[in-house]
Amino acid sequence: MRSIKVDFGDRSYPIHIGSGLLQNIGERCVEAGFPVRSSLLVVSDTEVAPRYLPALEAALQQKGYTVYSHVIPAGEASKSLTVYEEVMTTAIQAGLDRHSAVLALGGGVVGDLAGFVAASYMRGIGFMQIPTTILAHDSSVGGKVAVNHPLAKNMIGAFYQPSMVLYDLNTLLTLPPRQVSSGLAEVVKHGLILDKEFAYWCREHAAELLGLNLEVLGYALERGCSIKADVIRNDEREQGVRAILNLGHTIGHAIEAVGGYGVLLHGEAISIGMAGSALLAAKLGRDKSIYEETVSMLSALSLPVRLPAHYDEDELMEAMMHDKKFKEGKMTFIVPDAIGSVSIVNDVQASLVREVIAQLKKEGSPW
Amino acid sequence: MRSIKVDFGDRSYPIHIGSGLLQNIGERCVEAGFPVRSSLLVVSDTEVAPRYLPALEAALQQKGYTVYSHVIPAGEASKSLTVYEEVMTTAIQAGLDRHSAVLALGGGVVGDLAGFVAASYMRGIGFMQIPTTILAHDSSVGGKVAVNHPLAKNMIGAFYQPSMVLYDLNTLLTLPPRQVSSGLAEVVKHGLILDKEFAYWCREHAAELLGLNLEVLGYALERGCSIKADVIRNDEREQGVRAILNLGHTIGHAIEAVGGYGVLLHGEAISIGMAGSALLAAKLGRDKSIYEETVSMLSALSLPVRLPAHYDEDELMEAMMHDKKFKEGKMTFIVPDAIGSVSIVNDVQASLVREVIAQLKKEGSPW
Ligand SMILES: NC(=O)c1ccc[n+]([C@@H]2O[C@H](COP(=O)([O-])OP(=O)(O)OC[C@H]3O[C@@H](n4cnc5c(N)ncnc54)[C@H](O)[C@@H]3O)[C@@H](O)[C@H]2O)c1
Ligand SMILES: NC(=O)c1ccc[n+]([C@@H]2O[C@H](COP(=O)([O-])OP(=O)(O)OC[C@H]3O[C@@H](n4cnc5c(N)ncnc54)[C@H](O)[C@@H]3O)[C@@H](O)[C@H]2O)c1
Ligand SMILES: [Zn+2]
Ligand SMILES: [Zn+2]
Repeated sequence: MRSIKVDFGDRSYPIHIGSGLLQNIGERCVEAGFPVRSSLLVVSDTEVAPRYLPALEAALQQKGYTVYSHVIPAGEASKSLTVYEEVMTTAIQAGLDRHSAVLALGGGVVGDLAGFVAASYMRGIGFMQIPTTILAHDSSVGGKVAVNHPLAKNMIGAFYQPSMVLYDLNTLLTLPPRQVSSGLAEVVKHGLILDKEFAYWCREHAAELLGLNLEVLGYALERGCSIKADVIRNDEREQGVRAILNLGHTIGHAIEAVGGYGVLLHGEAISIGMAGSALLAAKLGRDKSIYEETVSMLSALSLPVRLPAHYDEDELMEAMMHDKKFKEGKMTFIVPDAIGSVSIVNDVQASLVREVIAQLKKEGSPW
Repeated sequence: MRSIKVDFGDRSYPIHIGSGLLQNIGERCVEAGFPVRSSLLVVSDTEVAPRYLPALEAALQQKGYTVYSHVIPAGEASKSLTVYEEVMTTAIQAGLDRHSAVLALGGGVVGDLAGFVAASYMRGIGFMQIPTTILAHDSSVGGKVAVNHPLAKNMIGAFYQPSMVLYDLNTLLTLPPRQVSSGLAEVVKHGLILDKEFAYWCREHAAELLGLNLEVLGYALERGCSIKADVIRNDEREQGVRAILNLGHTIGHAIEAVGGYGVLLHGEAISIGMAGSALLAAKLGRDKSIYEETVSMLSALSLPVRLPAHYDEDELMEAMMHDKKFKEGKMTFIVPDAIGSVSIVNDVQASLVREVIAQLKKEGSPW
């Protein structure tokens, strides 16, 4: 088992990564500080619950917990206030009290939704993240929880740290291949931002990663989580440096919003966004090799780096203007300076971004 | 102007109390740290907005702020997830960003709802409380914000401290008499909990308080807020001592839930609840004079101390069992030991509480 500590003073918590960890979920809940005999609410989705919920419930009950569950439809559409209220109803009907905890068993959708429930049920109860996607190595660490508003993604939420992140690698074995690649986009993102060596390591080990070699994957998730933990420790509420974790996300979110959520997966959209950021870097005078290398790494992980031709540039620009990363109308971008190093650049001209988007739609070399 | 500091380290904030303070609202927003030229969203209700919103908007605009407003229907029913989503929609359409702030102009309903919007819009933006009821001296201080779930009051919310509480006493002059009394219930509650002298002072000055003598009222609100600020400073998230502020609320919340919200006002319900707590105290061996004095103080403020006969005991008991102040089925009550002093008593027998409720319905002396 690999363990990382996320350091937030008296709200610090561990991330445990390993195969078969769910077998000891009862012990883990005790370690997380959830009183035995209290009520736990497991939130999961229709893909994950049939595979992993029964064993989880049984293990928790055996330890003496009273277990309730709420299964949401799989997919981004469940990150809504409507589903949020339904989970709240379950929690109230189950009689959860201030000593209870919410366990998020699933990917980023389940984690973000269940986290906001935990953050706001009775103004905050216990919370554990049990990620079952690769992408969720990112979403389960750092305490950003949210639901979407029909007009904008992740608009309603909180900063709410879990008491523990428990990553059972065995659950990843049932992930569909596109979800594997999508998750690896956030893994390599952590390398691209802060760890050159790790970024190249991801390219070298692309085959094992895509093939779900759990030993290799465990290392990748440990590195990804460590890098993220280091960044957020000093900026829990994203007032400054934490923004670097949004590499590729400004363009990526716009792609998701314009294309419809789920058409391109989150990791696929930000993969295109990271290619776009590297193109923008070239336009701002950085070395063109950053783009070449970025594209090569992403492609090795079976990720898209071009924007499908039907995406409308005006609509994408419009969506970006609404994105929360813009202060008072100015465009802010996370721009790579090299592989493994980025800057936060304010005052990026909209016309440059528009050029980048046009080029992302073209085949062949941009130069 | 009277000013009190609520001490939460680097999240400390002032409460300003005085006549005509709204005239300088622009300056206050600057002091509160809201950047000039940022967007502010004023949330108010249909009773308060026509009276005070236009002047407030004009003053803010004059200072250079961009001002949006959202007016909710007056009344407890607006503390719902539905109205919460509507306010969120306004905020998104207005393009509020992380530098924006929400101003709650109204009573506890507006403050609780707008506070939860501020706490969760983009995971938390600026927030100012501008209370316009006496009751809101309580709700605007301490950072408890929430909306109701159809099944339970205040079930969905956060701990989220404002940047400032701005109390313009002039706004209180338009309060209907029942709202005045209802608000004074929470004022005298602060005396009953921790300040014997202040509790007796309230009884002595009942006529001036009910007659809205702003000098006398200003002092009462200052004392009430100070007592509350002292308690919460050491227990922001109500893990211990803060619970004493719930004197009268276990029975009071049950009365509100069973009778229908708004039938008895919140302060009226907790007035009956405080009389009930004093009765319970007598049953637990405390001096009977606590009950006599409590009832005399509440009556002097035109508050009810008896439960209307049609309230069903079983329904009230049932409602209390659902109340969040019960850990794992045991009943916890805040019980007066004397005027100005209370204890948190766990393991109160349900049968005793049932006796108290029966007696609250009877005319005449309980002994
Ligand atoms: N909070 C954050 O900091 C943060 C960071 C990144 C992404 N996110 C959010 O995360 C979400 C995306 O997360 P995701 O990619 O995990 O999406 P997801 O939760 O929708 O999971 C992807 C799909 O895989 C299925 N699935 C999950 N685990 C499985 C398993 N073990 N076997 C088989 N199928 C499984 C799910 O049912 C779903 O259909 C987005 O909403 C995004 O906004 C949040
Ligand atoms: N957050 C907390 O710590 C806390 C503490 C106590 C109570 N509360 C909550 O506060 C709410 C009750 O607060 P409230 O009594 O202020 O209720 P309220 O906000 O409903 O106001 C009472 C009535 O007075 C009207 N009103 C307000 N200001 C007025 C004015 N200046 N002139 C004329 N009319 C005016 C309102 O429109 C409303 O009809 C409840 O929801 C309760 O749960 C919260
Ligand atoms: Zn992401
Ligand atoms: Zn109250």
